[in-house]
Amino acid sequence: MLDVCLFGAGLIGSVHAVNLARHPRVRLRYVVDPRPEAAARIAAQTGATVADAATALDDPAVGAVMIASATRSHADLAAAAAARGKAIFCEKPIDLDLARTDACLAAVRAAGVIFQIGFNRRFDPSFRALKHRLDAREIGSVEQVIITSRDPEPETEEALAAGGGVFREMTIHDFDMARHLLGEEPVALFATGSSLVSPAYARLGDYDTAMFVLRTASGRQCHINNSVRASYGYDQRIEVHGSDGMLRAGNRAPTSVEHSGVRAVSTDKPLHFFVERYAESYAAELDHFVACVEQGREPEVGAEDGRKAMILCEAALVSAASGRFEPVRY
Amino acid sequence: MLDVCLFGAGLIGSVHAVNLARHPRVRLRYVVDPRPEAAARIAAQTGATVADAATALDDPAVGAVMIASATRSHADLAAAAAARGKAIFCEKPIDLDLARTDACLAAVRAAGVIFQIGFNRRFDPSFRALKHRLDAREIGSVEQVIITSRDPEPETEEALAAGGGVFREMTIHDFDMARHLLGEEPVALFATGSSLVSPAYARLGDYDTAMFVLRTASGRQCHINNSVRASYGYDQRIEVHGSDGMLRAGNRAPTSVEHSGVRAVSTDKPLHFFVERYAESYAAELDHFVACVEQGREPEVGAEDGRKAMILCEAALVSAASGRFEPVRY
Amino acid sequence: MLDVCLFGAGLIGSVHAVNLARHPRVRLRYVVDPRPEAAARIAAQTGATVADAATALDDPAVGAVMIASATRSHADLAAAAAARGKAIFCEKPIDLDLARTDACLAAVRAAGVIFQIGFNRRFDPSFRALKHRLDAREIGSVEQVIITSRDPEPETEEALAAGGGVFREMTIHDFDMARHLLGEEPVALFATGSSLVSPAYARLGDYDTAMFVLRTASGRQCHINNSVRASYGYDQRIEVHGSDGMLRAGNRAPTSVEHSGVRAVSTDKPLHFFVERYAESYAAELDHFVACVEQGREPEVGAEDGRKAMILCEAALVSAASGRFEPVRY
Amino acid sequence: MLDVCLFGAGLIGSVHAVNLARHPRVRLRYVVDPRPEAAARIAAQTGATVADAATALDDPAVGAVMIASATRSHADLAAAAAARGKAIFCEKPIDLDLARTDACLAAVRAAGVIFQIGFNRRFDPSFRALKHRLDAREIGSVEQVIITSRDPEPETEEALAAGGGVFREMTIHDFDMARHLLGEEPVALFATGSSLVSPAYARLGDYDTAMFVLRTASGRQCHINNSVRASYGYDQRIEVHGSDGMLRAGNRAPTSVEHSGVRAVSTDKPLHFFVERYAESYAAELDHFVACVEQGREPEVGAEDGRKAMILCEAALVSAASGRFEPVRY
Repeated sequence: MLDVCLFGAGLIGSVHAVNLARHPRVRLRYVVDPRPEAAARIAAQTGATVADAATALDDPAVGAVMIASATRSHADLAAAAAARGKAIFCEKPIDLDLARTDACLAAVRAAGVIFQIGFNRRFDPSFRALKHRLDAREIGSVEQVIITSRDPEPETEEALAAGGGVFREMTIHDFDMARHLLGEEPVALFATGSSLVSPAYARLGDYDTAMFVLRTASGRQCHINNSVRASYGYDQRIEVHGSDGMLRAGNRAPTSVEHSGVRAVSTDKPLHFFVERYAESYAAELDHFVACVEQGREPEVGAEDGRKAMILCEAALVSAASGRFEPVRY
Repeated sequence: MLDVCLFGAGLIGSVHAVNLARHPRVRLRYVVDPRPEAAARIAAQTGATVADAATALDDPAVGAVMIASATRSHADLAAAAAARGKAIFCEKPIDLDLARTDACLAAVRAAGVIFQIGFNRRFDPSFRALKHRLDAREIGSVEQVIITSRDPEPETEEALAAGGGVFREMTIHDFDMARHLLGEEPVALFATGSSLVSPAYARLGDYDTAMFVLRTASGRQCHINNSVRASYGYDQRIEVHGSDGMLRAGNRAPTSVEHSGVRAVSTDKPLHFFVERYAESYAAELDHFVACVEQGREPEVGAEDGRKAMILCEAALVSAASGRFEPVRY
Repeated sequence: MLDVCLFGAGLIGSVHAVNLARHPRVRLRYVVDPRPEAAARIAAQTGATVADAATALDDPAVGAVMIASATRSHADLAAAAAARGKAIFCEKPIDLDLARTDACLAAVRAAGVIFQIGFNRRFDPSFRALKHRLDAREIGSVEQVIITSRDPEPETEEALAAGGGVFREMTIHDFDMARHLLGEEPVALFATGSSLVSPAYARLGDYDTAMFVLRTASGRQCHINNSVRASYGYDQRIEVHGSDGMLRAGNRAPTSVEHSGVRAVSTDKPLHFFVERYAESYAAELDHFVACVEQGREPEVGAEDGRKAMILCEAALVSAASGRFEPVRY
Repeated sequence: MLDVCLFGAGLIGSVHAVNLARHPRVRLRYVVDPRPEAAARIAAQTGATVADAATALDDPAVGAVMIASATRSHADLAAAAAARGKAIFCEKPIDLDLARTDACLAAVRAAGVIFQIGFNRRFDPSFRALKHRLDAREIGSVEQVIITSRDPEPETEEALAAGGGVFREMTIHDFDMARHLLGEEPVALFATGSSLVSPAYARLGDYDTAMFVLRTASGRQCHINNSVRASYGYDQRIEVHGSDGMLRAGNRAPTSVEHSGVRAVSTDKPLHFFVERYAESYAAELDHFVACVEQGREPEVGAEDGRKAMILCEAALVSAASGRFEPVRY
């Protein structure tokens, strides 16, 4: 039985809380959040105890921490957990600042603890199956990757102001997926962003609509398109072209019902947002983390993946301003 | 908290056991099965206690029984549970004999206990959404229903010999769905059966391949096709034609991955069999049962539904022999 | 160059006229129709000459006749053409009366002329590809066939009164397809019909909504469903289950455009009716006929096919009244 | 009746020849090609006369020319036809050199003749329907366009050496489609190209695999991906994201047949290449040209469209070398 402390009782913290509570080999011992009522709500649902960070971190029974708190707290919590020898599951990004990210990861490495980053999409059953089939060379060698990643609706201006910007909060997942599927590190990145959806983004110097092109040393290419609004729901698709064919993975709909009527043949919109669309992936990434802790092995998606995706975010910010293919150095 | 005793530790019993163990407002107290090792396996997984029927039924803490044992034991267990005032969830069929079915249901009615029959497909999210949209008259009034229901592979001869035949074990679900979707009781039924798949069925005087036509008093029609073998997996589809259009619900696949290659564009086969295909429906029918017990209300699918589906099975057996549209009297 | 006389300048006659005029090895010489303006319209479009039947039939330059006139005239025209040694393409049905059908076919046989019946669906590219793949045993041996065949809207009462009823005018195509796909002759047929769409059908003792089950000697089964109204357009689908899998052929839509919006993901309705849906099949059946005339070989779909489909229509009429599986004797 | 002279008896010339010969209001009078046997083959098929350019151009009966000859001859033939007052249909590109393109178009303008450029994809029924629905604001205002455009197989090295490179021969169609769908002129263009498929491209300093990002003044964005090899056939898809939803148009398959078997559910690959995929668009663009000539109106896609697409090609060549967002000036 692995005793876990959950940091963060917000939306993503709640998703993890439910999965932790359901996991047959996990005991969700503590939930920590600066907002007492949020922590209490999760505690009531799961039987966990509300605690402050120090109490939870100092309890030797706690074998692992799940960090789903505000981004600015990730690096400190991870370093503190590492110092106490606890396994760490950390939501992305590790930190908005690369130097702080590096310092945190150095501390983790020094402590020799297990560290998994929350790139949940790698655990989505369809994306995972696609990747296995790529690795089995069902379409030969990879040539181009196209990633469609569109949120159903813009963030509130408050959430935007608190966050790290669209590239670091949203595109970071796509950058990780690009690296994962290209099978080679991107060495150049082009980005362009616009303000077409909500003036709130522009007010913060951010973009609500963006396109990216990444390129590896051998010439493999990846396109990503992002928007913060898709009236038809969360749009999460992958398309990989190889020397021998194409593999695609599409959206998921709540039901298979199809209506044929006077005007059209219509089916369900895609599932609304990440909680629904990626429900299975959140459970599966936790399973993976628990198995790694139990068996003392390296998670499939770790500190380096978090850091490299951040480096791509930085390059994207530079490119969107410079209008050039920016070199990427890891 | 509802304390439940599970009868039956076979395949379908195991499905229910997992859902009972996971349910937040249920305690799986006892598991009863003549095969001690099967019962022990479920007990180990779920924390239930292995017991004999008498012990479990006599424990006043047990508020409900879930009957997933061999068909021939259903009626007696249900009657015994009813006599002790326990809520009953009973797998279909109630009994292979209509007179015994009627006697059992009379006992249930006399005791005034809640009784739900295991027509899980009514709780499948896609079929349920289709039915809601029918009721909302999205396609006007129902005219024809087409039900495709094909198992991935034949039963073993041993299982066949122990069962009640294809119509009572397999088609019974389709007969219930036909009644549910037609919105009127079928009053005539035509059936024809063949032996095309496995001689074991013919040896037992049964059919492995069958087609049915049902008709209501107002002239609505329903076709069902069955086979005990579908090399591409469990095939479970519904199509309803109304005065203003068509609604369909299709199969579900494990992933959304699509491969385009030299020969074809291909996607996943449907999920293999009922455990995978109807996973959500088993959890949802249990939710419904628990809510009915808690609130003292009638389940959506009850004793009469079990009985009427059995009457349609009997008519089908007669029709397959007579080659006539047989009248159905309830 | 094959000189052809077209009988009939109605809807189906016009379809054939366009294909005859476009065919590189055909000269549409005459068009014959009791309605002079209808004949004149086709003549103007195609360069054909309006003529009466006698003139056209007696012209030795005419090598073939295409009979697309009113049903009651088919048999006499075919017999007259046969007597003059002309190749015959005849729309279905040959005649509404089986004795007259037999007499006509005897005359054709005696004359030794080429005779093709207008079962155009056999030449639909998708249905044809499906049949080739069946014959290549891609799904092993055939076990069940399901044919969906639904018109977009009811006929006018006038057209109904002039025609031979739904089974002989509409289902006859499905009966031919059933024979074609089953690969064995149906020996028993069950039919049931209702009046759910338009009282005009019932007033004429006909049905607007029907279901059928056919069965071959070895136990292969076929279901057909018909309606005279499908709000979403002409619904023409085939599904064949074999020992090793399933083959399906679906509807065709005018475009591949897909719309994703707030309410649903929607695509085009199927093509509206037979002129659009089966455009390619009408051209292809003509190609086949011309090639058979040129090469003196038997068409793939001939007199016997027309006759057997009529016998199935007769059995269906009997069964719809008797409520029994009627034996079919050819 | 419009008398037409066809220049060019190669693959695309043959496509046009068939459509010209079939068109009810066109007479294909001359076919001109430096390869006598190629011209003779088309003449034999269509009844046209083989002629040299001077004879054909000087015949006052010729009302229009269709230029489908080698790219380097387009500008001279167009200028010569313009000088003689003939309507011009010209395959893309007008010329590989922008100065020569401009000179040619000045001559056309001076002569005041009708000029249509062969951007056939604008006449594809699905793309055309998508554009109409965009214009009807079914998805609000356009934000992002994604164009997938992949050939089934690389060109021969000989054809490559004779052509103008992948951007000017292949991507030019996508650039036109980008302009058409964005509804605003692209003002910046980013391109990156790789050599992943065939060394022949690299030997000629060309790319076989490329990605593009275009941007308009208001910030609308367009991504194009190209490859010279798609093992599954010609891949031609469009996806447009707007403020209120998404519209897509996909590939077309030869049949609707679907096979379900032990390994997968599979459907036909897309149609193999442009002759099949765009058959309808070639006929429709000719219809449009003929109607414009008859009615003396401007074609929907004219000289300016040809020129602007060429300017985008030039910008792409510069960007692929510079690695920058290149400004586009028309």
